[in-house]
Amino acid sequence: MYNKNLVDDIMKILSVNNESNLPLHNPVFSGNEEKYLIDCVRSNFVSSVGEYVIKFEKMLVDYTGSKYAVVAVNGTAALQVSLQLAGVEENDEVLIPALSFIATANAVRYLNAIPHFLDVGYESLGIDPNDLDIYLSDFIEFHNGLARNKFTRRYIKAIVPMHTFGHPVDMDALCEVASKFRLTVVEDAAESLGSFYKNKHTGTFGKVSALSFNGNKIITTGGGGAILTDDDELARIAKHITTTAKIPHQWEYRHDMVGYNFRMPAINAALGCAQLEQLPQFVLNKRKLADYYKRKFSKIDGVSFFSEPEYAKSNYWLNVLLLDKENAGFRDNILEETNNAGIMTRPVWKLLNTLEMYQNYPAMPLTVSRDLEQRIINIPSSAYLAENL
Amino acid sequence: MYNKNLVDDIMKILSVNNESNLPLHNPVFSGNEEKYLIDCVRSNFVSSVGEYVIKFEKMLVDYTGSKYAVVAVNGTAALQVSLQLAGVEENDEVLIPALSFIATANAVRYLNAIPHFLDVGYESLGIDPNDLDIYLSDFIEFHNGLARNKFTRRYIKAIVPMHTFGHPVDMDALCEVASKFRLTVVEDAAESLGSFYKNKHTGTFGKVSALSFNGNKIITTGGGGAILTDDDELARIAKHITTTAKIPHQWEYRHDMVGYNFRMPAINAALGCAQLEQLPQFVLNKRKLADYYKRKFSKIDGVSFFSEPEYAKSNYWLNVLLLDKENAGFRDNILEETNNAGIMTRPVWKLLNTLEMYQNYPAMPLTVSRDLEQRIINIPSSAYLAENL
Repeated sequence: MYNKNLVDDIMKILSVNNESNLPLHNPVFSGNEEKYLIDCVRSNFVSSVGEYVIKFEKMLVDYTGSKYAVVAVNGTAALQVSLQLAGVEENDEVLIPALSFIATANAVRYLNAIPHFLDVGYESLGIDPNDLDIYLSDFIEFHNGLARNKFTRRYIKAIVPMHTFGHPVDMDALCEVASKFRLTVVEDAAESLGSFYKNKHTGTFGKVSALSFNGNKIITTGGGGAILTDDDELARIAKHITTTAKIPHQWEYRHDMVGYNFRMPAINAALGCAQLEQLPQFVLNKRKLADYYKRKFSKIDGVSFFSEPEYAKSNYWLNVLLLDKENAGFRDNILEETNNAGIMTRPVWKLLNTLEMYQNYPAMPLTVSRDLEQRIINIPSSAYLAENL
Repeated sequence: MYNKNLVDDIMKILSVNNESNLPLHNPVFSGNEEKYLIDCVRSNFVSSVGEYVIKFEKMLVDYTGSKYAVVAVNGTAALQVSLQLAGVEENDEVLIPALSFIATANAVRYLNAIPHFLDVGYESLGIDPNDLDIYLSDFIEFHNGLARNKFTRRYIKAIVPMHTFGHPVDMDALCEVASKFRLTVVEDAAESLGSFYKNKHTGTFGKVSALSFNGNKIITTGGGGAILTDDDELARIAKHITTTAKIPHQWEYRHDMVGYNFRMPAINAALGCAQLEQLPQFVLNKRKLADYYKRKFSKIDGVSFFSEPEYAKSNYWLNVLLLDKENAGFRDNILEETNNAGIMTRPVWKLLNTLEMYQNYPAMPLTVSRDLEQRIINIPSSAYLAENL
């Protein structure tokens, strides 16, 4: 049953530029990285009060169009704080996609809240607003003016659209459903820096949003993340809570709530400034690579390349090869052959609700997620691969 | 009543090398910092899987004598994980000094556990084992083989000696009391890298311990921390839990518990390697500076310089000037005059149990802590100040 022709065809297309060692996503450091790092060390401010921290926040504001950006040690921390700012409290339910990286669920649990898993759709690989509307109509009731799960009797405070592999969720439609059910939108934009929904940057539709600059992301700060918001007061609290909730004073050490040591250090922000300067070029290169894949895979039977939704301009963070249903059984063969050949590929994450610590939480019927889980293969997506195409 | 002579005498001694701008504690970057940062960027591995991460852990093991070191994004995260490894669970009580930085209490709360505040002693400025023994005898009972607070009925799982400003707690005596009451010792060694108790490095007495490399510490990684332990299994779990509890696999994304994105990025570890190479010299310099202060302040009436306990060799992270009781009322005058003159000084932290979010937790009578809070002034302590002494 093993389809050798299909595997060979895929391998051939993936051998971009005939390279023999193809990581899934490597960063590109071809700008001012070394210059800014040296400058940061020589300034003596490598930690959380350095100038580069402020500069990186300003650059993020300029690029995304968000009114505020507050940088953090990583995307998980940024999402945790975003959820807290959205009013999520112990025992509240938070609606998140089952098809996501573990951080989306963990951030909810750090607040002692309950993840409630949603299915995703074929258009964006993220939450489908139409399916969501139908699902929520079945189990949400209003109590004290707040949305409540009529079965578990827990309040539902927030919904977290995650822009899977950089492809934006249909935010107009999603925000409409969220508004109808009085849910605060917190975007998990960890994968979508450089992705736009109807010409507006992802992460600017939610009340609060989280970005990530982990080593595998489109730009990296080593480890890092950011909270985006247009709300003056939430921005103030975001800064306060990520800097141990210390009340500014010339010498006194007084803190007024349980805060976090979550501020991004300047040494990481220095790297971020250099990387962000190159982001427009990274996006161009990644879209060029996606275009190459799209053209090539259109000629192969049995698989298809996943393209951005019509309303979006994606960063194509991780490119997605979709196996036809009848080829889903070959997924692991393809993963094995490609990885053994030095071409790094991977399946999508295990659905979060199937992991042992998340099995007993509420979940929508996950028909599409289950189908996609068997058919998605991520393929090499580094920006530099586009250089000789 | 304002004692101008005393303030003038203090200012004169603090004007080390006649410098006019004296921060409390600035880092020194005079080694391989730039070289390692550039090497790290050129290696393309700036994030959590870089070689510098492993190298920094190895260097920490060599320096401290701990069997294992697992690096983390900061000292707070390291302490949170250390407490979890020590078995601290929701609603357990954890014994911590009231005289400490906010992170000590916050780490307990992140686990939904209850801080129980202890007094400190005059010998080390940390927990006094004799007072502790008497206090614990009054309220600990054993239940299911575990220590329990007989009044609150909550289990007490761990005790956290914090080596204040680098001065080691009397660990032999403390471990004996802890053992008597079946408490696991978790050292908060955030301030004591380079400090030894009876020739053994602090952080190697607890079952698990936490270090910090924040920007104000004796060495810095921008932001960073480490978990120390001699226990093979706990070291394995520490690594697992700080790397999102992902089960190693060539491509699969499976996680078996709620872990954290707490691994130190390589770019920070690269800085750490360069800094750690210089640590022995930093300790020498800081001890030389402390010696200068000690000699000078011995000639001033009304104040005294705080010296390491007899059993210890301290890193003198932040030097401590102790006002005599009759001069405690001048503390804020001294803080104001010195800071206005560009000589950065500060009082000790507000006692943790007096902060609004920690007011309703159990606390030992805090006689010594309250006294010290009024009399401690931290004075400029950067290693480079010793250079021309």
